[in-house]
Amino acid sequence: MKARDLAVPYPTVRMETDALTAARLLTEHNRPGLIVVDENNHPVAVLPGSQVLRALVPSYVQDDPALARVLDEGFADSICDKLADHTVKELVPKDRPALPVANDDDTVLELAAMMAANRSPLVAVLDGKGKGAALLGAVSIYDLLGRLLPPAKAD
Amino acid sequence: MKARDLAVPYPTVRMETDALTAARLLTEHNRPGLIVVDENNHPVAVLPGSQVLRALVPSYVQDDPALARVLDEGFADSICDKLADHTVKELVPKDRPALPVANDDDTVLELAAMMAANRSPLVAVLDGKGKGAALLGAVSIYDLLGRLLPPAKAD
Repeated sequence: MKARDLAVPYPTVRMETDALTAARLLTEHNRPGLIVVDENNHPVAVLPGSQVLRALVPSYVQDDPALARVLDEGFADSICDKLADHTVKELVPKDRPALPVANDDDTVLELAAMMAANRSPLVAVLDGKGKGAALLGAVSIYDLLGRLLPPAKAD
Repeated sequence: MKARDLAVPYPTVRMETDALTAARLLTEHNRPGLIVVDENNHPVAVLPGSQVLRALVPSYVQDDPALARVLDEGFADSICDKLADHTVKELVPKDRPALPVANDDDTVLELAAMMAANRSPLVAVLDGKGKGAALLGAVSIYDLLGRLLPPAKAD
């Protein structure tokens, strides 16, 4: 069992993608984050969904969430415009560890070790080795655990 | 639109639950983490799936993931035993922000502000206020964005 056998397609964005497109991808795919790729489809970062919210929620509300209650419901109408004004590049966190990246022939245990070391629920898998390799897909923690765990015994 | 309208049931564990049960819940529900509740079903922590892997992967492999390659495939057979020996309490990270917790009448914007401030893909929702309140469910970031975003315009 190698990384290539476990990898499934995963939604991606580019640094220049606008944040509204990114937000729609998150909701369409029910994912907590997106993989950011460069022009060669090589993964360069991860965009956690919570970062998209940071572009949505005014900074004075982030500093004091109690203020959220006093904003009127019409707030949501302005969200589309706000998101369209931002790019993924502005939202990718600078202070986070990079997305762990595996090669296609890495073992299940290597994937598990990368997730554990990076505290990441996701590992990107390349279609080969090195900088020229493109994104093959990704392995999520629940898929990995599903393969690692023996079937539950029936009583 | 209030938190109670968005909250959906979410898999939970207790501090004394064994890690094997937690791992199975992660895979059955396709979730990146679990909510830890106390004996009154009050949420007290979040257990990220990557912490479960830390109990699985030997520490010398976490320190040097290249060692994962030299372990034989039979390694996976011992996983069940290793997990059954640990409890959720041992795996909950001590150095992480707590799971954000909302009241049932919090607004969508309040939920968004909590996720943004805590960098969390998830908010737990209580069935009332204060320490006696029990877990009603949780709101994930993709459900929240799905409610916030206006429908895509058809061209």
